[in-house]
Amino acid sequence: MLVFTEQELQKFVKLNGDSVAVIEEAFTVLASGNAIMPPIMRVDIDDHNGEVDIKSAYVKGKDMFAIKVSSGFFDNYKLGLPSGSGLMMLISTQTGIPQALLLDNGYLTEVRTAAAGAVVAKHLARDKVETVGVIGAGSQARLQIKAVALVRNFSKLLVYARSAERARNYAEEMAAQLNIEVQVMESAEQVVRNSDLVVTTTPAKEPLVKAEWLHPGLHITAMGSDAESKQELEAEVLVIADKVVCDTKAQCARLGELHHALESGLLKDDTAVIELGDITSGRARGRDDDRQITICDLTGTGVQDTAIALFAHKEMTERNIGMEIGNNQAFSKN
Amino acid sequence: MLVFTEQELQKFVKLNGDSVAVIEEAFTVLASGNAIMPPIMRVDIDDHNGEVDIKSAYVKGKDMFAIKVSSGFFDNYKLGLPSGSGLMMLISTQTGIPQALLLDNGYLTEVRTAAAGAVVAKHLARDKVETVGVIGAGSQARLQIKAVALVRNFSKLLVYARSAERARNYAEEMAAQLNIEVQVMESAEQVVRNSDLVVTTTPAKEPLVKAEWLHPGLHITAMGSDAESKQELEAEVLVIADKVVCDTKAQCARLGELHHALESGLLKDDTAVIELGDITSGRARGRDDDRQITICDLTGTGVQDTAIALFAHKEMTERNIGMEIGNNQAFSKN
Repeated sequence: MLVFTEQELQKFVKLNGDSVAVIEEAFTVLASGNAIMPPIMRVDIDDHNGEVDIKSAYVKGKDMFAIKVSSGFFDNYKLGLPSGSGLMMLISTQTGIPQALLLDNGYLTEVRTAAAGAVVAKHLARDKVETVGVIGAGSQARLQIKAVALVRNFSKLLVYARSAERARNYAEEMAAQLNIEVQVMESAEQVVRNSDLVVTTTPAKEPLVKAEWLHPGLHITAMGSDAESKQELEAEVLVIADKVVCDTKAQCARLGELHHALESGLLKDDTAVIELGDITSGRARGRDDDRQITICDLTGTGVQDTAIALFAHKEMTERNIGMEIGNNQAFSKN
Repeated sequence: MLVFTEQELQKFVKLNGDSVAVIEEAFTVLASGNAIMPPIMRVDIDDHNGEVDIKSAYVKGKDMFAIKVSSGFFDNYKLGLPSGSGLMMLISTQTGIPQALLLDNGYLTEVRTAAAGAVVAKHLARDKVETVGVIGAGSQARLQIKAVALVRNFSKLLVYARSAERARNYAEEMAAQLNIEVQVMESAEQVVRNSDLVVTTTPAKEPLVKAEWLHPGLHITAMGSDAESKQELEAEVLVIADKVVCDTKAQCARLGELHHALESGLLKDDTAVIELGDITSGRARGRDDDRQITICDLTGTGVQDTAIALFAHKEMTERNIGMEIGNNQAFSKN
């Protein structure tokens, strides 16, 4: 079994056109019915304000599939540790034998999550985007905007976060990295009202974005909610939008923004909701009018994990990177 | 992160009184409500006649919990490989950070599965067992009988398997190892009619054991069925039995013998069914009459996996065994 470390993975798997293409293809495969993706397994460790998610998907025809373990322990900052960690493993689809262990501490999840944001922006944002907005100032707030920058040219970035200090740090860092103007705003409302494309990246449990702030031409990617209790958008936002897109309807109806829109009864059913893979595969249309309001609800899918893990494995083995550790059978089982 | 190999685990974690005590305690904890055990995640790889199960359980108060990946690829014999493989990992319940990887290729699953058989026999078989029967001649047919031998003295073992050659090999091997008389029988009926305790260990999809063969004092442990399509006992067997016990009712009603008894309508509901942990904790009684017919349906639980993985970790670290591999965070996440 090959073992790859986070350092190695960071060096050779990056958020760029290649990884975005890999994730776009993953959504197409998911929509084609050629992926088997079981429901997420979740272990809640309430005593320590933690949760561990296990995701997986088998893509027909691939020689391996991934199982991904990712944790969020929200008191870790008290110990000086990041909240997220985890690993991925690749299992042979021919024999079931584990082939590789990707000790990425959540890095590949960050990449594949942001890459989905690029896919969404490519298909749902207006061609001409001048101002991008972001709510939140953590790692996904950074990566999601870098992902948008791969598919749209924009000149201004607006950020709002509860911590003004974190927002200021964010603005300084992103202005330098993207070489654009970044403004710290005093409210989520200012961000939404003044942007062509907004990404919400928070673990909010109460909606941050109100329907009355929406305006023609706006696209919102809501990537923060991935649990029953999380919500970034008022349910009404999904009712007003011209197009509502989900990474997978089944997951969003359980864990995403769609969940709250359906549960509140404001959205009667999900028949008009489109899956992202239907758009990437060309079966459904993305934005087809500059004045449409579009929303995409991302909860994160196992098929993205399998796609990024297979991509990482290829990148690493082509360069002969990775440590071999022994998992040979010790005895013949009868 | 510490890595333990199958060779190391085989050397220091064995099917014996210690591991049986650990598994007995696990069932008690499960019944007490102090374990959080999500439903099994299953990835079916039908193209290669394979399946991968992921099990987990968090036991409150423990500093780590296990996630177990186990696969069964039933065409592997064509490649000269065993059908089963897999690994376990231990995750910190304080921080979510992976702590140990147990590259056991399914060995610990074999041990914890057989250990459950010992717990069952201890509480449900008659005190005086003369003849034990086994259906199947694979690795669990061996380990389950060794497990029974830890808790009951018996002088004769009857075996039936579809392959007469495998049954003969089994008989020879077990006679030598347990120093008892082992007879190959020509039918499952002969085994059931002539034994005080029977263990069924097959992946049968049609029932092997008929209700009309049952007799007073018999105990049957059915450990083969762990999927919707598998069944070793006629549904009527569960109706006739004086006591029906499950490792967990929820899983058995979905994947075990109980599933077929309920689905057929022969068993009206599961209110009379007892969970094994209710017996190990003393809240319910096991066998209380030598003439009772008792049945136990085992599907395999995540709480057993966490228990055996924690036990293995303790045994290994006490002996300073294990290879350290680096999974340190490579960068500060914001």
